[in-house]
Amino acid sequence: GYSALPRSVAGLEGAPEWPALRTLLPPMPGLRVLDLGCGFGWFCRWARGAGAGQVIGLDLSARMLGRARAMTDDPGIAWLRADLAGLPLAPARFDLAWSSLAFHYVKDLAGLLAAVHRVLRPGGRLVASLEHPVFTAPRRPGWRQADFGGWHWPLDGYGQEGQRAVDWLGARVVKQHRTLGTLLNTLLRAGFVLDHVEDWVPTEAAIAARPELAKERERPIFLLLAAHRPG
Amino acid sequence: GYSALPRSVAGLEGAPEWPALRTLLPPMPGLRVLDLGCGFGWFCRWARGAGAGQVIGLDLSARMLGRARAMTDDPGIAWLRADLAGLPLAPARFDLAWSSLAFHYVKDLAGLLAAVHRVLRPGGRLVASLEHPVFTAPRRPGWRQADFGGWHWPLDGYGQEGQRAVDWLGARVVKQHRTLGTLLNTLLRAGFVLDHVEDWVPTEAAIAARPELAKERERPIFLLLAAHRPG
Repeated sequence: GYSALPRSVAGLEGAPEWPALRTLLPPMPGLRVLDLGCGFGWFCRWARGAGAGQVIGLDLSARMLGRARAMTDDPGIAWLRADLAGLPLAPARFDLAWSSLAFHYVKDLAGLLAAVHRVLRPGGRLVASLEHPVFTAPRRPGWRQADFGGWHWPLDGYGQEGQRAVDWLGARVVKQHRTLGTLLNTLLRAGFVLDHVEDWVPTEAAIAARPELAKERERPIFLLLAAHRPG
Repeated sequence: GYSALPRSVAGLEGAPEWPALRTLLPPMPGLRVLDLGCGFGWFCRWARGAGAGQVIGLDLSARMLGRARAMTDDPGIAWLRADLAGLPLAPARFDLAWSSLAFHYVKDLAGLLAAVHRVLRPGGRLVASLEHPVFTAPRRPGWRQADFGGWHWPLDGYGQEGQRAVDWLGARVVKQHRTLGTLLNTLLRAGFVLDHVEDWVPTEAAIAARPELAKERERPIFLLLAAHRPG
């Protein structure tokens, strides 16, 4: 299952998009950080190691939070079991909100982003990754052999937003498909200013290290975003 | 050829994305407008009809400008044959820059957007459409019959930016494929603030009127953008 994935075992270093995300982060020393959907807590521990002052890791899964808690006794990290949508936190409290591959599970993204905007201080930043709309859209996702050689991704259903149920690692996973326009406009309407957008594809160096990543250049799998609450 | 397309014959009303683009425009009365890649001049004439004070239509094609000129004797429209990249215009002069389906032909988009930023007044707006990266990416674009019925778009090559040569209406057309991240970051780095992003797909009403549009919901064909130069 999920806990056997490279990113679950090796943490951030096992996630090929981490180097790209890392360049979007501000200098960490002293920052108050909120991790939305912290999972096993890899980013929370990294943030503290990079100098963050205080980190709150928030997740819905008690099991994941239990494993996150077991991997550190750092008093600078607090673990909070809560729905992202609720976000029971004081306003203007955080310098940085981070979220890795969680937003595509959130039904009320407008509500969540409004809440994130509220708990960030003016000037505070949001850095997030999520599954790319091109990846979530298809009715039958999965590579197809191209009629001229190579592989293509069978894109359809892009304009039909809403739920997608896929089988993944032996379990049924339900995601929310939104177009890129909807994602970005939801962010803008929540009051954020957009700083950077990236359809992540692996670098040549990443492919050299992990050849199985080569196909990932054919279509974007992750969307990386950086934005801030205006000061 | 191109002049027989619905959008060439019927103008803006023949372009299914026009209603969506129109909602991105500011109130037109009195505006000084620049049309980047004006073609037959449909938008220039519409803008004047909607009250724009002065319109400059810019295109590289003498033939298209000739036809544009022949369709009006409005002294409020000036036609200018120039490469988008050159943009030989005075700074801070325009309230609105508009561009319909031209940016994907531009090699130096960063240079063009810097120039557009310069000729807009502070607070001035940019509204543009271009071919969507999902549409420009594939090595062999064209619908494929899906193995479960219906149609899919064979997405590949997304991460490989650069030239794409396709046959269209009996001619060889060369486009520039850029990822969505590159497009938006180029806009942001030119100094624009992003206001709206839309992966255009047809509405139910548009499909009812033109059933051949139904497939266009399966993948985005156009990207619509609105941004402004901060004041």
